[in-house]
Amino acid sequence: MPPVADARYAARTARMRPSAVRDILRVSSDPRVISLAGGLPAGELFPVEEYRAAFDAVMAEQGAASLQYGVSEGYAPLREALADRLARLGVDGPPARLLITNGAQQALDLLGKVFLDPGDVIAIEQPTYLGAIQAFDQYEVRYLVVPTDDDGMDVEALDAALRARTETGAPLPKFIYVLPNFQNPSGRTLALARRRRLVEVAARHGVPIVEDDPYGELRYDGDHLPTLHSLDRHQLVIYVGTFSKILAPGLRLGWLAAPTDELFRTLVLAKQPSDLHTAIAPQMAVERLLGDGLLERHVPLVRACYRERRDAMVGAIGEHFPSDVAHTTPHGGLFLWVTLASGVDTGELLVRALDEHVAFVPGASFHVDGSGTDSMRLNFSSEPPDVLREGIRRLATVIAAARDGRAAIAVP
Amino acid sequence: MPPVADARYAARTARMRPSAVRDILRVSSDPRVISLAGGLPAGELFPVEEYRAAFDAVMAEQGAASLQYGVSEGYAPLREALADRLARLGVDGPPARLLITNGAQQALDLLGKVFLDPGDVIAIEQPTYLGAIQAFDQYEVRYLVVPTDDDGMDVEALDAALRARTETGAPLPKFIYVLPNFQNPSGRTLALARRRRLVEVAARHGVPIVEDDPYGELRYDGDHLPTLHSLDRHQLVIYVGTFSKILAPGLRLGWLAAPTDELFRTLVLAKQPSDLHTAIAPQMAVERLLGDGLLERHVPLVRACYRERRDAMVGAIGEHFPSDVAHTTPHGGLFLWVTLASGVDTGELLVRALDEHVAFVPGASFHVDGSGTDSMRLNFSSEPPDVLREGIRRLATVIAAARDGRAAIAVP
Repeated sequence: MPPVADARYAARTARMRPSAVRDILRVSSDPRVISLAGGLPAGELFPVEEYRAAFDAVMAEQGAASLQYGVSEGYAPLREALADRLARLGVDGPPARLLITNGAQQALDLLGKVFLDPGDVIAIEQPTYLGAIQAFDQYEVRYLVVPTDDDGMDVEALDAALRARTETGAPLPKFIYVLPNFQNPSGRTLALARRRRLVEVAARHGVPIVEDDPYGELRYDGDHLPTLHSLDRHQLVIYVGTFSKILAPGLRLGWLAAPTDELFRTLVLAKQPSDLHTAIAPQMAVERLLGDGLLERHVPLVRACYRERRDAMVGAIGEHFPSDVAHTTPHGGLFLWVTLASGVDTGELLVRALDEHVAFVPGASFHVDGSGTDSMRLNFSSEPPDVLREGIRRLATVIAAARDGRAAIAVP
Repeated sequence: MPPVADARYAARTARMRPSAVRDILRVSSDPRVISLAGGLPAGELFPVEEYRAAFDAVMAEQGAASLQYGVSEGYAPLREALADRLARLGVDGPPARLLITNGAQQALDLLGKVFLDPGDVIAIEQPTYLGAIQAFDQYEVRYLVVPTDDDGMDVEALDAALRARTETGAPLPKFIYVLPNFQNPSGRTLALARRRRLVEVAARHGVPIVEDDPYGELRYDGDHLPTLHSLDRHQLVIYVGTFSKILAPGLRLGWLAAPTDELFRTLVLAKQPSDLHTAIAPQMAVERLLGDGLLERHVPLVRACYRERRDAMVGAIGEHFPSDVAHTTPHGGLFLWVTLASGVDTGELLVRALDEHVAFVPGASFHVDGSGTDSMRLNFSSEPPDVLREGIRRLATVIAAARDGRAAIAVP
């Protein structure tokens, strides 16, 4: 008989499995391993002294208020400063509909809480963000998988799928989840024409869109594209953002802009029982940093650093990878996506890569249907250019060896 | 037609209603109102300068690590320091099974995520903590309501109910939720003999216990009683605690001690998709405060302050309240519980009380079955003694007027 406490978990726990990849990577904590697997922003860029000064000033000036209970909606001056900033980035909306969350991850969880019953359908890009899959899996949903190409989600395929569902009376998705800018994991960006079309299609079918935009400000080439939120005329786009990639992730500060007062109120009612509210002193500190104009000085530094790292990785791939290996060249963000000649399983390849002291995330982790086994995600934000180049060199060796091994097996 | 984003929420949102009380209290933000309604710890006691120094030292010494992503389990040195401290308080267990959460509230939410399917039953004391009801309501549960008296939960009534369920084949509760020390809202403490018996009954029926202990260290009279966790020999007690009442609540730091590795792992898998992890710099700062021995100096100050406030409130009740009004005299915690002579609805009374510039929480909020309308919760932690005395004096006037009004109606 199992211990009493382990006896009867909820059905949803069956979908809370630890990822095999996480375990593999944990086993290999060998410091000689170059990890292209993580998604960490570059710690050396964090404005630590500015945070230190901000916490000091907050505690000196706000005193006990910085440590007392706060409201579930978030610290009002932070919501106001953020609303101002978002308006300048094309995400217009009143601070009154801006909810502060524990990182964007909690925003996804709260959206799950508010929208998803077991068996519900949501539409996702494939591949998509692993943390979103984990957030939505908890709510025992099914996925309508929309294919992607170099211009992002194939909106015509989405439209066709929604039409087919309407015709057959099958339930429509509760929402469409999409990362339009430098998507995690693929690095792809949703093209402008497709953005317009996506909002149109969603409006026609009456399906809300969750626009997850953690990397939107980290563009290294080309022009900023309008957010889906800014193209929306039907109160259907829920915009999710975070300070994690433009400042630092460790304080867990993200946000969600709701298109209606009603949805905002419901999300607040979902946040209250989850944790009452997000920690106050960190909200006050970041509000102070925003007021000091830190982001205007800091984001350009982050962009310059990551642009150089992306260039280093893309350059090294061009130099070292076999020519039949495809990859994306993202215009921003933290990741690029590699697709090997079919027949190589990147899950198996990871084991060999760790022997060569290099790590990546196998692509299947970002797929909900077992596909993607020939792909991998590479991160270029967390190591300097020379380390990235050496990592790619090692990975190239592993890929080449796998190809040769496969060839050897293919010829009896 | 409603806006697209409001179209189809999950079934659980039907149970995420704003409390009428919250609305009433919000309307009355009149600074002349003496609020005995809140549950705020006394801000003037917060060790602000110690926090300020701790954040400064953490950022100086830990640098970027204090702002980088961390692990879902929590900051390891904090878990170790906390395990040491808990062991001294009779909650033995390895740091490896201690999960850091965003306040105790998130611990309750995660327990709901892991244990509760729609329609499941859990056993609760009545009255019980409103935030727990809200946390469990999200999971669409039903309640097995266990009556309480001055010695806390009536364990024999619980045993009888569990036996009856076993005999009729009705499902047993997924867990028993109990606040053994200075319960919110009643201020009652579970007697020692009942603690032993509760653990015995739970073990015999194979039902886990969730022991919520936010106030255990805030005892003003009598001896510390052993936790349920320390009486447990069957790995059935899940212990939930928080820094909110012994330090300050604003950083949202709580914890959960799981009785088994398996449950711990499952709770971590539930935390990851919820928010990845709890904010790092606050965990580092509090770890530093623990290492400096702050709690050993600070908790006695909190106790002394709240003891004086409790005495002031209890004394004023004795002086001013009509003699047919019953109240608890808690040995610790933040709250006491008042029961009026039947026939007075404290929800209606609150409206009149606000006219007299005093507020409380009507007792029905802490009941899941519509009962408790003749009771109210009073908080004595957040105002100084003279304000508490004036609040009670005003409240006595309102109660007397209501009684007279009722009497006047009774005599035609």
